[in-house]
Amino acid sequence: MYERTWTVRFSDTDPFGIAHYPRIVDALHETSDMFMEEIGFPFWEISREHGFGLPLVAMDFEFENPMEAGDDVVIELTPDPGTKSVRFEYVGRCDGEVTFSGHEVRVCAHQGGGGAREFPEDLRAALEEYADD
Amino acid sequence: MYERTWTVRFSDTDPFGIAHYPRIVDALHETSDMFMEEIGFPFWEISREHGFGLPLVAMDFEFENPMEAGDDVVIELTPDPGTKSVRFEYVGRCDGEVTFSGHEVRVCAHQGGGGAREFPEDLRAALEEYADD
Amino acid sequence: MYERTWTVRFSDTDPFGIAHYPRIVDALHETSDMFMEEIGFPFWEISREHGFGLPLVAMDFEFENPMEAGDDVVIELTPDPGTKSVRFEYVGRCDGEVTFSGHEVRVCAHQGGGGAREFPEDLRAALEEYADD
Amino acid sequence: MYERTWTVRFSDTDPFGIAHYPRIVDALHETSDMFMEEIGFPFWEISREHGFGLPLVAMDFEFENPMEAGDDVVIELTPDPGTKSVRFEYVGRCDGEVTFSGHEVRVCAHQGGGGAREFPEDLRAALEEYADD
Repeated sequence: MYERTWTVRFSDTDPFGIAHYPRIVDALHETSDMFMEEIGFPFWEISREHGFGLPLVAMDFEFENPMEAGDDVVIELTPDPGTKSVRFEYVGRCDGEVTFSGHEVRVCAHQGGGGAREFPEDLRAALEEYADD
Repeated sequence: MYERTWTVRFSDTDPFGIAHYPRIVDALHETSDMFMEEIGFPFWEISREHGFGLPLVAMDFEFENPMEAGDDVVIELTPDPGTKSVRFEYVGRCDGEVTFSGHEVRVCAHQGGGGAREFPEDLRAALEEYADD
Repeated sequence: MYERTWTVRFSDTDPFGIAHYPRIVDALHETSDMFMEEIGFPFWEISREHGFGLPLVAMDFEFENPMEAGDDVVIELTPDPGTKSVRFEYVGRCDGEVTFSGHEVRVCAHQGGGGAREFPEDLRAALEEYADD
Repeated sequence: MYERTWTVRFSDTDPFGIAHYPRIVDALHETSDMFMEEIGFPFWEISREHGFGLPLVAMDFEFENPMEAGDDVVIELTPDPGTKSVRFEYVGRCDGEVTFSGHEVRVCAHQGGGGAREFPEDLRAALEEYADD
């Protein structure tokens, strides 16, 4: 499991004082980017150096409680890797209470449109280290 | 059904030349905002003048084909209203081919946290005009 | 002069009900993108097909009046082309009143870091058609 | 002087692999938000609890060198407070080299449009602690 804290900023909030949904999605996306960097396969490197990417094919989220500016939201990301795709499970919590949860599905795809491919062994191993048993 | 065209901009695109996912979500969110304005209940007015909002409680999308800068993406929004919540169904198409599809669920909620309430009659009628039979 | 109307959306607004500054900058950037498409040299095409770009080297803006959700902001863009760079002058107005004004400077640069180059003749001519006399 | 490190993410970058300008502006805005929190006057608190805000009235930036995904950009913010307004000076550096520099001007304004007011003494003192001598 990977964990980071996202602080909701004033510029993320709406007239009710709560985070705009697109800004929450920005934070989720940033979390996947931080996670890939953490495990040694940053998005920018796999595309530039290894010739493949992890495009998103699905996202499914529930927003259970609103978040306000100044809230420190602990976002957990747990990868669940398959052969050619990976599911990133997310839970966001504020003071221990779940604010959102859901998942993304990303496929391992050849750059330039050649379709799905198997994960390289080292990337798969890195993903499995953070997976649930 | 409501329909608008979203042109993918250079500033929406990534190193592969395709639209970043958070920018697609921005476009979806803008579409719901344009739809509510179209039916006479813009988000800014229902919050300021009627004391309720339509917060998002769920979103579930599939991204079927990438979109590039300059693509004119026709986004359809079809509302499916219930008593206290509404489902917005989306389909995005580029040159007739589906690029993404999915839905959002929004609840009719008292401003300031009083929980869900029934839609006012006129808003419900306006939503139903755009619903599938 | 090029002109487009930007409608401020609920998701652009802050707890005071006015547009967040980064969202105004998004709208400015979208306007330059729409302008370049209008004159036949969309950003995505000059980079893919002509091997140069127009990176921003400076921006200078004054925000004179706040904008609210639902405001239809008429944004004017007037290009002032030089030999190797162009200044885009912007004025935003709401109900005739100036809400912001300022400019961007963009240079014509070889892709891949080769430095500034002169505008191709046809692009320069296209920019001059929209310039002030 | 206040300092934070902004890591450019894959989702911030364009087809040339460099950061989109609106994403740099997001990072600047986030930096001002982090700074105000650091000095004990977060934007969300001064608006909710003290009845004033610090709306932006001007921004002026130069972009001197492009930034790529994975770059750790050290952003310095130095406030220069006046009686009723404050100038935030910014410098961004990557590996010691300046990537952008510029400033914002923010006024201390009564909430709800009552115009500019003097800074409260404690906020002014907090700003001066981070100012250049």
